[in-house]
Amino acid sequence: MKEIVNHQFRLAQRPVGMPKREDWSYAEEPLRDLADGEVLVKILSISLDPAMRGWMTDRKSYVPPVGIGEVMRAFAAGRVVESKNPKFATGDFVTGILGVQEYAIATDKAIHRVDTSLAPLPVYLSVLGMPGMTAYFGLLDVGRPTEGNTVVVSGAAGAVGSVVGQIAKIEGCRVVGIAGGPAKCEFVVNELGFDAAIDYKAEDVVKALRRDCPAGVDVYFDNVGGNILDAVLTQIRLGARIVICGAISQYNNTGPIKGPSNYLSLLVNRASMTGMMVTDYAARYGEAARTMAGWMQAGKLKSHEQIEQGLENFPEIFLKLFTGENVGKLILKVAD
Amino acid sequence: MKEIVNHQFRLAQRPVGMPKREDWSYAEEPLRDLADGEVLVKILSISLDPAMRGWMTDRKSYVPPVGIGEVMRAFAAGRVVESKNPKFATGDFVTGILGVQEYAIATDKAIHRVDTSLAPLPVYLSVLGMPGMTAYFGLLDVGRPTEGNTVVVSGAAGAVGSVVGQIAKIEGCRVVGIAGGPAKCEFVVNELGFDAAIDYKAEDVVKALRRDCPAGVDVYFDNVGGNILDAVLTQIRLGARIVICGAISQYNNTGPIKGPSNYLSLLVNRASMTGMMVTDYAARYGEAARTMAGWMQAGKLKSHEQIEQGLENFPEIFLKLFTGENVGKLILKVAD
Repeated sequence: MKEIVNHQFRLAQRPVGMPKREDWSYAEEPLRDLADGEVLVKILSISLDPAMRGWMTDRKSYVPPVGIGEVMRAFAAGRVVESKNPKFATGDFVTGILGVQEYAIATDKAIHRVDTSLAPLPVYLSVLGMPGMTAYFGLLDVGRPTEGNTVVVSGAAGAVGSVVGQIAKIEGCRVVGIAGGPAKCEFVVNELGFDAAIDYKAEDVVKALRRDCPAGVDVYFDNVGGNILDAVLTQIRLGARIVICGAISQYNNTGPIKGPSNYLSLLVNRASMTGMMVTDYAARYGEAARTMAGWMQAGKLKSHEQIEQGLENFPEIFLKLFTGENVGKLILKVAD
Repeated sequence: MKEIVNHQFRLAQRPVGMPKREDWSYAEEPLRDLADGEVLVKILSISLDPAMRGWMTDRKSYVPPVGIGEVMRAFAAGRVVESKNPKFATGDFVTGILGVQEYAIATDKAIHRVDTSLAPLPVYLSVLGMPGMTAYFGLLDVGRPTEGNTVVVSGAAGAVGSVVGQIAKIEGCRVVGIAGGPAKCEFVVNELGFDAAIDYKAEDVVKALRRDCPAGVDVYFDNVGGNILDAVLTQIRLGARIVICGAISQYNNTGPIKGPSNYLSLLVNRASMTGMMVTDYAARYGEAARTMAGWMQAGKLKSHEQIEQGLENFPEIFLKLFTGENVGKLILKVAD
């Protein structure tokens, strides 16, 4: 194996505001031999997620930050090309936190075998991966919509939001998406079947919510924070549930996070705002995957990936998450 | 009855920032005759509550604002002096939303008979009234502390906070109060039995929370909002429950409400922030009153009222709520 060179993006410095290419170094190193119990994975697709921005910041959080000089953390999918672990064989397809690189050496604790005869590999980074699990448990366990509820989701055309809205439709809800630009709005309504979409770049969100949610908002699944969270807070109904899944509008702030000025609407409406982390539901991923795979087979749930090419383009492709240039799950394909 | 003159504070204009005496008019009008079904109540004690500030603002909320020219809304306790309602007799003691005035004419729907042989009348505006009910249901139903939890309450020396902390102690929790000034801090620790108190005027609240809540905060009962809410958000534990009961630090803001910048701590800690309104629990007030009366008889729960004198002093006494000059329930005594 000595002759294989592994290209990698390593964190070079902590970004201030929007990350730049110089915040990473594009490194290469020869692959070492496997130890007993290890598996060599050739990475085929890397998942680009907003959470990666948080992992670059040195702040107390749910996981330690990526250290300076370490390979940039990322979910990825790949194929086992060598195994010294009896649980995995050459040719197995796997997913895990494998990093922004061409090859990863992992133990069985870090990877999970997936069946590409049931769904293409990228779907395991999308609906059948972390974004889908986040949508499923965040909406159903934390948001708890009931039939006839009005569900609003921001980042509606994104990896999580697009699944949240589709599941809410399956549950019999009225679903309104908030997204940036006419293409995304058309996508969520025409492709995904949302009842309405609000283009926050072109419309006054409060007015649009009044138009599209005349009965008020029962469940709000928030991926963006900032002014959109504040706008939705003005339109919630009695007993509304707000799921705090992310706050992508705030991740590249150099100043303080914008807290929701309208949070006292929680008091007036006896409503709740609850944070969720998908990893808490690990014991139930199988249940969710079976249910969502069934919905996909029945044509009720679509997985949409935007697949970009080339490991060397990682910094620029990653930024599409924050400039709003992705529709569906953003994936970086690094090998066939 | 024609010869009785009723003195009243009527809302003259909507206050900007801290209310001033000129925001009300001190009016007098002769009492009209009672219609069938009505009761004339001579008001003895008026409850002064932070919520009254909200009622003065013309904004969509859980109740309509007080109209310009209307008697200022307030809870009060009094004695029936004339009755054309078979459910009430002259001499009965009652509570209800009776207004800032000497006499109120009410129907049986607006008043509630209380038994002054069980507790003095002011207690029915305090532990056995709305503040006590708010503390009881907000803490036990929304905060849901369990034995050994760390419970933090702001406005700890106030009408609600002082009861929240005492109930949390009864439930076997570690209780830390946040209050302004050494007298209040000493009161909650030495008089009410809290485990510790943080003087937010003299201490860095985050540092003090680290000292007094070494295991982190399981339940935070928030009466104040603003910077203190943000400080506690940095110290919450996994699965923490934040009860949003009020935000007295923000009620006289002329600019926008300060939203909690650290709200993403809810996500990291899978925590929730939930608003509550005591009136939702009306069907269970009896249960709460019986339980709390039992605790009072057992010496486990103290009701502390700060009783000020004279209807004509209402504007200045009311402002003590916002300048931090009250300890326990602030009551304006208007007649013996």
